[in-house]
Amino acid sequence: MAARQPVSEFDLIERYFKRPMPPGVLGPGDDCALLPAVSGQLAVSTDMLVAGRHFFDDIEPRRLGHKALAVNLSDLAAMAAQPVGCVLALALPSADEAWVAAFAEGWYALADRWNCPLVGGDTTRARRDLAITVTVLGQVPAAQALRRDAAREGDDIWVSGCLGAADVALQLAWSLRELPVAGGQSAWPLQRWISGLEPQVREQWWRRTRDALELPEPRIGLGLALRGIARAALDISDGLLQDLGHILAASARGAELRVADLPLGLLEQLPPEAAWQAALGGGDAYELCFTAAPARRAEVLAASRDAGVAVARIGTILEPAAGLRVLDPMGRPLAPWGRGYDHFAEGMP
Amino acid sequence: MAARQPVSEFDLIERYFKRPMPPGVLGPGDDCALLPAVSGQLAVSTDMLVAGRHFFDDIEPRRLGHKALAVNLSDLAAMAAQPVGCVLALALPSADEAWVAAFAEGWYALADRWNCPLVGGDTTRARRDLAITVTVLGQVPAAQALRRDAAREGDDIWVSGCLGAADVALQLAWSLRELPVAGGQSAWPLQRWISGLEPQVREQWWRRTRDALELPEPRIGLGLALRGIARAALDISDGLLQDLGHILAASARGAELRVADLPLGLLEQLPPEAAWQAALGGGDAYELCFTAAPARRAEVLAASRDAGVAVARIGTILEPAAGLRVLDPMGRPLAPWGRGYDHFAEGMP
Repeated sequence: MAARQPVSEFDLIERYFKRPMPPGVLGPGDDCALLPAVSGQLAVSTDMLVAGRHFFDDIEPRRLGHKALAVNLSDLAAMAAQPVGCVLALALPSADEAWVAAFAEGWYALADRWNCPLVGGDTTRARRDLAITVTVLGQVPAAQALRRDAAREGDDIWVSGCLGAADVALQLAWSLRELPVAGGQSAWPLQRWISGLEPQVREQWWRRTRDALELPEPRIGLGLALRGIARAALDISDGLLQDLGHILAASARGAELRVADLPLGLLEQLPPEAAWQAALGGGDAYELCFTAAPARRAEVLAASRDAGVAVARIGTILEPAAGLRVLDPMGRPLAPWGRGYDHFAEGMP
Repeated sequence: MAARQPVSEFDLIERYFKRPMPPGVLGPGDDCALLPAVSGQLAVSTDMLVAGRHFFDDIEPRRLGHKALAVNLSDLAAMAAQPVGCVLALALPSADEAWVAAFAEGWYALADRWNCPLVGGDTTRARRDLAITVTVLGQVPAAQALRRDAAREGDDIWVSGCLGAADVALQLAWSLRELPVAGGQSAWPLQRWISGLEPQVREQWWRRTRDALELPEPRIGLGLALRGIARAALDISDGLLQDLGHILAASARGAELRVADLPLGLLEQLPPEAAWQAALGGGDAYELCFTAAPARRAEVLAASRDAGVAVARIGTILEPAAGLRVLDPMGRPLAPWGRGYDHFAEGMP
């Protein structure tokens, strides 16, 4: 059942993905890759991206190559781990040279920036759906990993970058493709805003936000700079409210968020409730959400400057009984749709 | 685009795949798993199995769980690496409790035997095809990994276990499903033998050989026992001739194989040429093929006894100009179809 492949395409992949290895690394071509001994703890994460579920079938391959690696590096960033290498498994329904070259270009532009060599892989011809699995390996000194279970009462809650643009892009892409929104969501602020836009304005907003969706930037440098400063951290893949909920559950704490402090960037131009919906509930952000003691504020800001990544202080960790409260600019609880965001994103049809 | 899943099935997966972690290991639930520092070199391998390509859609899930892990552990075995952990990415078109429970049962029966904890994973709903990516991690003392490029002239060539049964099972499965064989192959000895069998005899042979195809046994124990004894090694996934060819290419050597010495097991009952075809060309064997100096024969046999895995000495590494020769029981070159086997196996339709 050994999947022998038509030679041409898969030779192409080998050609485009074969690069010189760092010293001490045995790369692709043997049964396993071999990496030098890792210092500290070994961090491992795997993510599978499937066509029609995590990306549209017609996504530009250069962007797909970037994103497949970025969402995995983002997991290392959230753990404050330094990348040491990665492996890539591809199931391709077909591939031409231009596709492979572009995928590899997007992949390596990011991999080279963070010194994350591709040390092994597997390529298979898929019957139908393109599927990509990336596994990343990193190292982190013992006890310096930023875990989800380390938040304490009184900690500040911080996020990197800006939130919500990826979700706006996704909702715009759905609307431009005339895909139906899930039941009830057409009444939500972001969907209402989109449905009121002229077609060419939708296109314009798509062009302004698509990079946030398709070219997320893993916050490796910030994660490393936060070692010994932050307590709990994760990357926002499912939406701030849902992901912060994971920190609260793992740490057995509650929290309060202030929408007035959410870093919205471009989305400041949207109706406020539409922007808050995207920032609180939108997935695919790949920004870091982390907590740190108030005494560490100056160090957090210094880490942010060192890494060249903005951070915003958006809330506070509270006692467990507080649950997860979201406050509007007047300090009142945001209700009722504010709490519905964690059921918001659905896989594509 | 975060793939939120119907809760029930994916909660099931979490339930069936959540096990206590070894001391010092942070398992599933955070952005990354954390493993203690690895001693020596870190070995990494990834394999993706896709429905319709690497297994039939109706494979028993318990057997699929075993095989998905086994083919990856086999790569560690071929490198003489000790498993330290693995991650699993699953794209499932659907899943019921019985399926998940059986897949997990097959997986863990093997994982527990080799102390290979599942430290992380990712689950996605596939639009159509079931796809499974496993990445295994292992450790091996520096300079003791069994690489493909280490064979030397005069080395014995050894294989573990018996060869060919998995290929017989695959060809029988195709014939029982009335799938067409590739052009020209119907004249080959194994296909001729199968086409001459009564239906109930085919079924009987399927029952006798299917475990070789669906439940391959990774030779971890043998790989570890061969550290410091064997020179080059790999696992036979694409067929002995093709895989030995990888050793010869990487080592810049030639070789001679004696069909009379091939360990055929059950296949002794087949017409000799049919058995040789399966043993030389059949994929999915997951036995080790390795080389060692003739002076190490006693140590190889002792390693075989320690690991409880038979080994057979089937040939000799020669100078590069010899190419890859296969000798029949009379010592004559096996021709012409003997050399066609490395083009034999094709992915399933």
